[in-house]
Amino acid sequence: MPGFFVRWSAFFFYFCAMPVISHRGASMPPSPIRKLVPYAEAAKKKGVKVYHLNIGQPDIETPKELLDAVRNTDMKVLEYSHSAGFESYRKKLVKYYAANNVHVDHNQIIVTTGGSEAILFAIMSCLDPGDEIIIPEPFYANYNGFATGAGVNIVPIPSGIDDNFALPSIADFEQAVTTRTKAIMICNPNNPTGYLYSKEELEILRDICLKNNLFLFSDEAYREFCYDGKKHISALSLEGLEEHAVLLDTISKRYSACGGRIGALVTKNKQLIDAAMKFAQARLSPPSFAQILGEAAIDLPATYFDEVKEEYDERRKILVGRLQAMKGVKCPMPGGAFYAIAELPVDDSEKFCQWLLEDFSHEGATLMMAPAAGFYFTIGQGSREVRLAYVLNKDDINHAMDCLEQALKEYPGRLEI
Amino acid sequence: MPGFFVRWSAFFFYFCAMPVISHRGASMPPSPIRKLVPYAEAAKKKGVKVYHLNIGQPDIETPKELLDAVRNTDMKVLEYSHSAGFESYRKKLVKYYAANNVHVDHNQIIVTTGGSEAILFAIMSCLDPGDEIIIPEPFYANYNGFATGAGVNIVPIPSGIDDNFALPSIADFEQAVTTRTKAIMICNPNNPTGYLYSKEELEILRDICLKNNLFLFSDEAYREFCYDGKKHISALSLEGLEEHAVLLDTISKRYSACGGRIGALVTKNKQLIDAAMKFAQARLSPPSFAQILGEAAIDLPATYFDEVKEEYDERRKILVGRLQAMKGVKCPMPGGAFYAIAELPVDDSEKFCQWLLEDFSHEGATLMMAPAAGFYFTIGQGSREVRLAYVLNKDDINHAMDCLEQALKEYPGRLEI
Repeated sequence: MPGFFVRWSAFFFYFCAMPVISHRGASMPPSPIRKLVPYAEAAKKKGVKVYHLNIGQPDIETPKELLDAVRNTDMKVLEYSHSAGFESYRKKLVKYYAANNVHVDHNQIIVTTGGSEAILFAIMSCLDPGDEIIIPEPFYANYNGFATGAGVNIVPIPSGIDDNFALPSIADFEQAVTTRTKAIMICNPNNPTGYLYSKEELEILRDICLKNNLFLFSDEAYREFCYDGKKHISALSLEGLEEHAVLLDTISKRYSACGGRIGALVTKNKQLIDAAMKFAQARLSPPSFAQILGEAAIDLPATYFDEVKEEYDERRKILVGRLQAMKGVKCPMPGGAFYAIAELPVDDSEKFCQWLLEDFSHEGATLMMAPAAGFYFTIGQGSREVRLAYVLNKDDINHAMDCLEQALKEYPGRLEI
Repeated sequence: MPGFFVRWSAFFFYFCAMPVISHRGASMPPSPIRKLVPYAEAAKKKGVKVYHLNIGQPDIETPKELLDAVRNTDMKVLEYSHSAGFESYRKKLVKYYAANNVHVDHNQIIVTTGGSEAILFAIMSCLDPGDEIIIPEPFYANYNGFATGAGVNIVPIPSGIDDNFALPSIADFEQAVTTRTKAIMICNPNNPTGYLYSKEELEILRDICLKNNLFLFSDEAYREFCYDGKKHISALSLEGLEEHAVLLDTISKRYSACGGRIGALVTKNKQLIDAAMKFAQARLSPPSFAQILGEAAIDLPATYFDEVKEEYDERRKILVGRLQAMKGVKCPMPGGAFYAIAELPVDDSEKFCQWLLEDFSHEGATLMMAPAAGFYFTIGQGSREVRLAYVLNKDDINHAMDCLEQALKEYPGRLEI
């Protein structure tokens, strides 16, 4: 009987005891972009067409030459590549960057698994747990995830819709700097705001970084998509910032090749590239197929970007034009990338986005947007804003805007503005 | 003049001040497997043939059906996949695992970028900085890198060449457990030792994990490669360990597809899969092309592994037979994977491996091995051992062993044993 009791209680103990996940794992933020996905799936099951303006997944075709490069491979063994990526690819990237006024050699480039890994390597290599990174908000929501994983604290400084999301003032940056600050991070042109930083703004950032001896992480995923005749300026082309600037890059948006998972970390700082290289070695190599695709991309004619940019520019004008024409909607014209942030005359944009998927349709269709609160670090900010990605063709954008216009009339939580 | 001085000194300050990388970045260990690469490159430049037994890059051809699946894709847009991987691929993996006595559903699988990312997600999701993970040493060197990145402490317990690298005793494990211990990690069959854990050993591990409420991370990259009629047992098939076992997997070695970068994290622990999913969302998706390849792999006939295993088995017998026949060399016969550890009659295996590349050749050739010290956490351990990967064809292995035999006669630091 005591034997039975011991065995039974041991079983009970085993049954109840479960190993516990980490605080880090528990506190990882879920993706705000993918949060409403179950509601979209339910809408589709009901037969409602959903226009996806919530996610930066372009409908632009991946150039055939790039896909063909992968289709025409004649390898026998799918081998590891160099941990920094194929040397042949890095040498081609040298030319690509030089054409964009960034002059590096191939040993200053690490090919990464998407821009995501470039961000992770930069944070891991430059910041210790408890260190701080200053980021103007709203910002690309996944920066939160990488910071949480690395135990790093994000210090947001606000940029506002009424200033078109321009760079916050020098005073704002100076106030945010502490002894734990190691880096400033920007995305240029910006996701989610579409703001394109000017040369003057980048020089302000340079001076702050030099004065406070900070790294400048510059996410330039959307480099080619700048409108109204404006030119993109890379952080790595700023004079005097050679040791501080870290370019974080990806081919995902540039060539509509999101599923490839190829990006790059580029820096002239020798210590940093050596440290990042050890993180690269630990994960062995970036994916080979997409490197082949990336290498083929460098050979695309320059006209490729002209055409794609023209297409995005037209979409931008339609989307923002339609939004600005809606009563009570505020939407600054973005200068780059393929996103816009709009403030809507609604009580709460997350509720509204969910309502759009759950309770609304217009001529059999509705739209999905990303509630902007997820792009703000400061709780309560952006609660009436949404991010829209103009990644659909012009007809679809117009249809989606028809839906939004109608929805703003019907939504029970609409505000009279 | 003062103005000039201020400007000059500011310039001097800017010039000298460089942002400093993190302690984490500085303390990342370099890869012991790739450390001697510059010497190998120099040897090749001198015209010496180098037999690469240092790295687990098989020369076995990737099955043509798998490469064809990628070559025959007719996609128009290379899109992001689901963050957990294509649902179609995960559903096929369910069948693959079921055939290996692991019964899960597709929501218990996250497709990762190589086994590397599966390891990273497991560590990040289960351990906080300062937490401890027990690993029998020697172990796969890159575990060090992931632990360093995550701020996690590895607690090694020794397994020895004289015990054929069998599982350390229960007492050794019990002594190593502290209040910060969150997990035990094994690689089965083992890289670098080739040891295959028996059912009894796995049950001992189960009991220790249940008693101390620990996760069991089981890296099963080499599952199919078990010899002498022995069967592989997955940690995730152990009764009672459903909430504790985490299977870390990769297609790299299984299908000779290292450059694909596709792996998986598999667990029945709901909390854990939810946390890991947030890390997966932050990096968006695993590479699409290699998922297509992985999906095609599930349709390979079962005979595929018979043939590949037969080939590795023959190589194993040649390699280990030749090593055991050399005077003063100790090399236990490995039961799985495609690695063996040998103790050599030399003063220091790292010096010896470097000498092999710098100062030795036999009939125009030499060999590259991985000094085993890099696989031990405890400094000073394994200083006379090397890891050899039998990833070359039989002729090449024989030639490499001819080189080694001759080298052990010529090496100035040889020991008389």
